Amino acid sequence: MSVASYYSQEAHGPFFTKPLGNFELESGVTLRNATIAYSTFGTLSPAKDNAILFPSWYSGTSKIIEQAYIGQGRALDPDKYFIVVANQLGNGLSSSPHNMPSPLNGASFPEVMIGDDVRAQHQLLTEHLGIEELQLVLGGSMGAQQTYEWAVRFPKMVKRAAPIAGTAKGTAHNQLLVQTFREAITSDPRWDEGCYSDAAAVQRGLRRHARVFAASGFSPRLFSEEGWRAIGFSSTEDFLTNFVEGYFLPMDPNNLLLMLNKWAKGDVTRGAGGTLQSVLSKITARVTTIAIQEDGFFPLADIQAEQKMTPNSELVTISSPWGHLALFGIDPEYNSKIDATLKRLLLA
Amino acid sequence: MSVASYYSQEAHGPFFTKPLGNFELESGVTLRNATIAYSTFGTLSPAKDNAILFPSWYSGTSKIIEQAYIGQGRALDPDKYFIVVANQLGNGLSSSPHNMPSPLNGASFPEVMIGDDVRAQHQLLTEHLGIEELQLVLGGSMGAQQTYEWAVRFPKMVKRAAPIAGTAKGTAHNQLLVQTFREAITSDPRWDEGCYSDAAAVQRGLRRHARVFAASGFSPRLFSEEGWRAIGFSSTEDFLTNFVEGYFLPMDPNNLLLMLNKWAKGDVTRGAGGTLQSVLSKITARVTTIAIQEDGFFPLADIQAEQKMTPNSELVTISSPWGHLALFGIDPEYNSKIDATLKRLLLA
Repeated sequence: MSVASYYSQEAHGPFFTKPLGNFELESGVTLRNATIAYSTFGTLSPAKDNAILFPSWYSGTSKIIEQAYIGQGRALDPDKYFIVVANQLGNGLSSSPHNMPSPLNGASFPEVMIGDDVRAQHQLLTEHLGIEELQLVLGGSMGAQQTYEWAVRFPKMVKRAAPIAGTAKGTAHNQLLVQTFREAITSDPRWDEGCYSDAAAVQRGLRRHARVFAASGFSPRLFSEEGWRAIGFSSTEDFLTNFVEGYFLPMDPNNLLLMLNKWAKGDVTRGAGGTLQSVLSKITARVTTIAIQEDGFFPLADIQAEQKMTPNSELVTISSPWGHLALFGIDPEYNSKIDATLKRLLLA
Repeated sequence: MSVASYYSQEAHGPFFTKPLGNFELESGVTLRNATIAYSTFGTLSPAKDNAILFPSWYSGTSKIIEQAYIGQGRALDPDKYFIVVANQLGNGLSSSPHNMPSPLNGASFPEVMIGDDVRAQHQLLTEHLGIEELQLVLGGSMGAQQTYEWAVRFPKMVKRAAPIAGTAKGTAHNQLLVQTFREAITSDPRWDEGCYSDAAAVQRGLRRHARVFAASGFSPRLFSEEGWRAIGFSSTEDFLTNFVEGYFLPMDPNNLLLMLNKWAKGDVTRGAGGTLQSVLSKITARVTTIAIQEDGFFPLADIQAEQKMTPNSELVTISSPWGHLALFGIDPEYNSKIDATLKRLLLA
């Protein structure tokens, strides 16, 4: 599958695309004719008081979030709520290295920060959809980074927040992990400082990235219990090649690298100023912080440390052999616990 | 520091070198004029009944084991015991890719298995040192692999065994991790299929390897608590560059790759035949299996599963923010718990 056919309505739609105009990034560079892609589920109430926002995680699009979290009878029920799933900049549906016209294309796409995504989403919600109140902002991993940023930056708009398996400020260990993901790609000579003409030619880097990602993204227990059998794979190697490599191979390396840089630099204090403690202490939303017990990317202790700094919050821990990648909705037990937790929060 | 000056008596001695003659490997290839390097501490009793064997771990030599585990008043007390620290094949002191004459040098050095190391050590002990009984065989990580192999292969000779932070049979998750370490080096174009003329030129691969290694070798807590300050580093980056990269940079890439392949394929059932359960159930030594709670390379659950298959065994778990790399003797609390545990085992 080519990069263009991967990042398409056919593969990831239906989604809408909203022009952001000339969008000035935190770096000072203006992203001209920037766009944000999003999907919606359900109907916005006349009072516009039933909106939920769910920003995307690393490498994901609105499609996987729809499949994993949204449905009748679930916490994110389109019969009750108007759910906006926002694609982060660089994810291939919103403005991204692979779809940007020259001269800001490819490796020359400017650096994007989590705060940029949140401002773009704010513009989408307020100017385009007329939404001034969110019942809930939630997201996993990089989506949790955006969730914290929302709660800090727009406290009057966010009634509830559920950061899942992610942090408000990147830890040194998490940054080291992300660096290993980056280097798995950039070490491929075909990456060529980002100036490849064919994304698929960077396959060695993409495959290496997939395996480094899998080594800490899933828990060791998933491998010892051969939990991948439940989703139809026949061996560890079958799982790593056909599931993990297969997932990343159609993606654009520069898109991934842009998101990885954003991930590593995620830090709510950048925009807000002050210490992490002082910034988180000002959050007014009701917060349910969700950690995955076996998460190798965002360990429970790091998530718990931030939850304790967040005033109106509780910590919910979910166990899954899928580790961080339980986020994908692959583990029925994780899914049912997430639903129960979010339903409780939405009633609070 | 050049590779030659790194793997030297000056840097890692004093050590002895014993010719193994023409040593036939499990693969069927004969390693001509093979040698095994070792250090000894203490004096062999006239009855030859006070010997302890400690094989080396990945990338380490007898020197670090001496520094971290051996001393008067410690469990491994040279006033009481005759302690033999054996350097595994490929570690740079014993026969290794970098010191082997053509045509078996460099990337053409034949594949070595854990069983080969144990047979080489057996030859050293019985033929050269006249030792027929070992009070204790112990080792960490790849040393634990060798310890299990000793207990399985030479049950009459091994009275006690202490595998630390390692397994008898590699798990799929551990093999995936080791693959990421390998690829961190082999992705460097200067590695050139192992045919580099200058090991130091492979520095990008060695540095990348160091960081992938550090990302799971230490625990996330070490980073969040900045535990590296205790050994004199000033920032995460200072620690990663000057400690972790600095440690690996003088080593020979083909040496490391040979050991990594051996690590990944470590499996006591290869030589013994049968299931892991049936092989471990035949161990007659008294075994203390030691796990490090925060170990990202060899998770507690995997170690515990094997301990439960081992008849005359107990499990001791030690907690350290240094994770797997507490093995290096860097954490005083780990060191004192190891000593107490080994003293108890040696009295049993």
